[in-house]
Amino acid sequence: MLAALRHQLLEHQLDAYVIPSTDPHQSEYPAPRWAAREWLSGFTGSAGTLVVTLHEARLWTDSRYFLQAEEELAGSEIQLMRLKTPHTPEYADWLCEHLLRGQTVGVDGRVFSAQAAKRLGGKLKKAELQLRTDLDLIGLIWKDRPGLPNRPVSEHLADFSGEKWENRLQQLTDWMGEKQLDYYLVSALDQLAWLLNLRGTDIDFNPLMVGYLVAGRRGDHAVFAEQVEALATWADKLPELQRRPYREVADYLRSLNAKDADIGLDPATTSVYLATAAGGMADCGVPNPIAKWKAIKNDVALDHLREVMRHDAVALLRLRCWLDGAIRDGITEYQVGEKLAELRAEYPNYVSESFNPIVGYGGNGAIVHYHATPEKAARIRPEGILLLDSGGQYQNGTTDITRTFALGPVTDEQRRHFTLVLQGHIDLAMARFPTGTSGVQLDVLARGPLWQQGLNYGHGTGHGVGFFLNVHEGPAGISPNPKSPTAQHPLEPGMVLSNEPGYYREGEYGIRTENLVAVRASEQEGWLHFETLTLFPIDRALIVKERLAGPQVQWMDVYHQSVLDRVGPLVAGEELAWLREACGKL
Amino acid sequence: MLAALRHQLLEHQLDAYVIPSTDPHQSEYPAPRWAAREWLSGFTGSAGTLVVTLHEARLWTDSRYFLQAEEELAGSEIQLMRLKTPHTPEYADWLCEHLLRGQTVGVDGRVFSAQAAKRLGGKLKKAELQLRTDLDLIGLIWKDRPGLPNRPVSEHLADFSGEKWENRLQQLTDWMGEKQLDYYLVSALDQLAWLLNLRGTDIDFNPLMVGYLVAGRRGDHAVFAEQVEALATWADKLPELQRRPYREVADYLRSLNAKDADIGLDPATTSVYLATAAGGMADCGVPNPIAKWKAIKNDVALDHLREVMRHDAVALLRLRCWLDGAIRDGITEYQVGEKLAELRAEYPNYVSESFNPIVGYGGNGAIVHYHATPEKAARIRPEGILLLDSGGQYQNGTTDITRTFALGPVTDEQRRHFTLVLQGHIDLAMARFPTGTSGVQLDVLARGPLWQQGLNYGHGTGHGVGFFLNVHEGPAGISPNPKSPTAQHPLEPGMVLSNEPGYYREGEYGIRTENLVAVRASEQEGWLHFETLTLFPIDRALIVKERLAGPQVQWMDVYHQSVLDRVGPLVAGEELAWLREACGKL
Repeated sequence: MLAALRHQLLEHQLDAYVIPSTDPHQSEYPAPRWAAREWLSGFTGSAGTLVVTLHEARLWTDSRYFLQAEEELAGSEIQLMRLKTPHTPEYADWLCEHLLRGQTVGVDGRVFSAQAAKRLGGKLKKAELQLRTDLDLIGLIWKDRPGLPNRPVSEHLADFSGEKWENRLQQLTDWMGEKQLDYYLVSALDQLAWLLNLRGTDIDFNPLMVGYLVAGRRGDHAVFAEQVEALATWADKLPELQRRPYREVADYLRSLNAKDADIGLDPATTSVYLATAAGGMADCGVPNPIAKWKAIKNDVALDHLREVMRHDAVALLRLRCWLDGAIRDGITEYQVGEKLAELRAEYPNYVSESFNPIVGYGGNGAIVHYHATPEKAARIRPEGILLLDSGGQYQNGTTDITRTFALGPVTDEQRRHFTLVLQGHIDLAMARFPTGTSGVQLDVLARGPLWQQGLNYGHGTGHGVGFFLNVHEGPAGISPNPKSPTAQHPLEPGMVLSNEPGYYREGEYGIRTENLVAVRASEQEGWLHFETLTLFPIDRALIVKERLAGPQVQWMDVYHQSVLDRVGPLVAGEELAWLREACGKL
Repeated sequence: MLAALRHQLLEHQLDAYVIPSTDPHQSEYPAPRWAAREWLSGFTGSAGTLVVTLHEARLWTDSRYFLQAEEELAGSEIQLMRLKTPHTPEYADWLCEHLLRGQTVGVDGRVFSAQAAKRLGGKLKKAELQLRTDLDLIGLIWKDRPGLPNRPVSEHLADFSGEKWENRLQQLTDWMGEKQLDYYLVSALDQLAWLLNLRGTDIDFNPLMVGYLVAGRRGDHAVFAEQVEALATWADKLPELQRRPYREVADYLRSLNAKDADIGLDPATTSVYLATAAGGMADCGVPNPIAKWKAIKNDVALDHLREVMRHDAVALLRLRCWLDGAIRDGITEYQVGEKLAELRAEYPNYVSESFNPIVGYGGNGAIVHYHATPEKAARIRPEGILLLDSGGQYQNGTTDITRTFALGPVTDEQRRHFTLVLQGHIDLAMARFPTGTSGVQLDVLARGPLWQQGLNYGHGTGHGVGFFLNVHEGPAGISPNPKSPTAQHPLEPGMVLSNEPGYYREGEYGIRTENLVAVRASEQEGWLHFETLTLFPIDRALIVKERLAGPQVQWMDVYHQSVLDRVGPLVAGEELAWLREACGKL
């Protein structure tokens, strides 16, 4: 396949070709049609960029995937480039160093964002290299490439979402009026789903339909998707919307541009191909407010989320009660994930998992993005620590919870580390802060107890969570990076975020305690606080009570009481007994 | 004077003229020659911008100066514009709204930074307005304008600074080599002073000489200042440096530019006039690393600073011992500041105050930038709270300390508020954090205890402090603004910052506890902590011990013991007795 690609390079007078892992919508998980980097390299990780020149092929990925990439690339000619390790340039810099003045780099502009193309083009230009974005070489060589996604779509009822799609579209057209835009291209799939109260199944874990919306200020909206028919069946409720095939969006934008319409689009989530069709980035780049509107959950949605948390807890509770016996009988990490998905599916509103569960036993718990496969999963024994990070997509909300379980005897050190993580979790959960505060300011609350001991964790503290949408969403988050726009974004009432500090001992164990929280307005005007939404006991066998401050002990007892009060009525017998015991006072 | 300015507007076909409060070096305090805004408007505050059109005159300032500006502008035609209050546009937006397409705004490019000119020009351009920066109308109408500053300069001995100026210049030329710059214009006065180990008296509170350095990569350096002669007398140590009059710098830059030299400059601290002379911003804008080098104090300087803190404490201790009797005899806030300056001056290394002291009794303590004048200072009584924020410039360091004293009976609420502020002060002082952490991440440690009670303060938590240089310096600081480059800047070992949380009750009292801290590398590699440098007891009459956590009580006792150990040997008799008592265990 690399040979076929190189043939095309020669054919089109290119000197290098960049194959990113993105789709035309810059989704976190691309549909199979756009898994070109995986198809060409064999590397299955979610993040990575392949660069092919006439004589070399290199794959850039980050530390989460070093081991996996080594294994999957073994035997190929592709050389692994470990991002953020010494003496490893980023791929753009590598291209600048390795190509000769006047040479040309190609990338498929259909899957490369306008923003990324501008950055890459700028870097290459300084090294006197050209960038072409109009050649889809993968399309020419991938004979059995999967088709455009066209799996079923359905309406997300306003009973769940709390707002009619007509109102959301109106909000967008009002904003377009302020910005004096005639049309706005919505490219991000979760923004499309949120705007139209529409859910799909085109993408794993994210309940999305692959498509575009071109909103018209005068109500002349058009949706572009392969599911035109499916849309028509449920969507006589969408009479105002033109429904057109996915591939026609570029021509449509060109026709609008030819009529001198003012078209807006978000350069971060729109392909350079469509940005060009709409008239070029310089004219069109206008980040939209949909990400923020979407992040702020209304009261109806928050109430659903409170309810879904009870049922999500029941699934985890049943798993926990089943676990000890299953361990005696012999199970692997992979089977724990499978069992939990089955248990979640017992709740009628369940749709799917919200991400690949992370079931990490012992040292595997210290691998932050560990995914147990059926072949390689570790067998679990009745000792040490199990880290379990999982979530579900339900019609009435998206969940994401991590618990760390003591499966048998644990060491004093493990309890001390668990308690430090818990202190940070509680301090963040209890925080009060004025309007305008952003995540980068609060991050240290979760990290502080570990920091005081010279310990830390290498990931962010919290990400935004969609409402029956992506489990990772913007625009706000909690992280220690002062230059991250997500961490800088003010937290606003209604936003739902994770609170997930952790601590990891390589090769030994991983600890993380994650609840979802909603940002709430306090009674005192101008002040905010968090409401913890997730309901599941935190393993008391791992808590050193004496290390907790008084208010932390109090928080813990109040939390456990509320878990018992809200989840208890849904279970009985042994399960209720287990819950009562687990929710006892510290 | 406004009439004369308007005459010039007509003469030069301008429609508006902007008079900022800056000098050619973007100093915090301009020398009298550049106090044009004050001269024209009568408003003496340190921050403010005057805009004059043919029919209007408006002055923009921030909330610190609303009252003062109202009084000082009363009777003039100048209208006060209160920044960051509803319906008040910034002056650039006001110009865009009030001028007509095609009209022209003028500003003196000699005192307007290249960066500010670029921003203003960009905004005006969008409204189809022109910006001219080549007209110094103030120079034409200010008949008795003060001359260029030319007060004495002196060498800051390497015994104090810990490093020869030759090495510092070498460090700069090495960096210029990396950046392939032939020349670098140093415009910021504290950078000039630091590079050359040179101190001046041209500016109040800041021990600076007004001048420029044009560093040459090949050692062909040139200093431009009115003190050419003075420089020559002490600076036979500077044989390599050309010494030329201040006014010649623009011609010199033009001559270098004509020879196609690569000239660098910092657009934030260089005037647009000089940036243009050097070849224009597009080519020259290269922020320099001097601010960072300067911020990182070497071990020699830190040792001096530890020593100067002992003597600074003695002055404050003598003031405190004198205070109660003086209050009985009758004194004002102003007299307290005067007395303290006298006591500081008893130490031989003393040079001047490092800023106008803030002596705020009762409600005056709640005015964050309060400055008592001889005429208006409040009389102090033996009750309530006195806030005292002051500092000194010494050959061996710059100090900045705030203490809040109980002068007699205080209320429970005052003690509660004082204790919350103290808890934040201690939590920040005790922080441990990994390399790369920035101030915006730590700010909440100081603010958290107040936040949990729904209380806050409206200023930053910490600013950088120079070494016998400006009491406010970059590049790092501690503040809650996630978009501030200062707050985003990583803290590095050797940086000296203030730790100064506060709480203010309008009309009632102000509380602030400020120590200087140095960032230090911890024994554990990759970790940092603060060393508190300032040595003075914190008023135990205001502390509610029961509210403090165990480690906070311990910090307080250890701190008081170290104050006693280090300051005690410098005093005797009643002063020592007072110190012993003040440093007792909680």
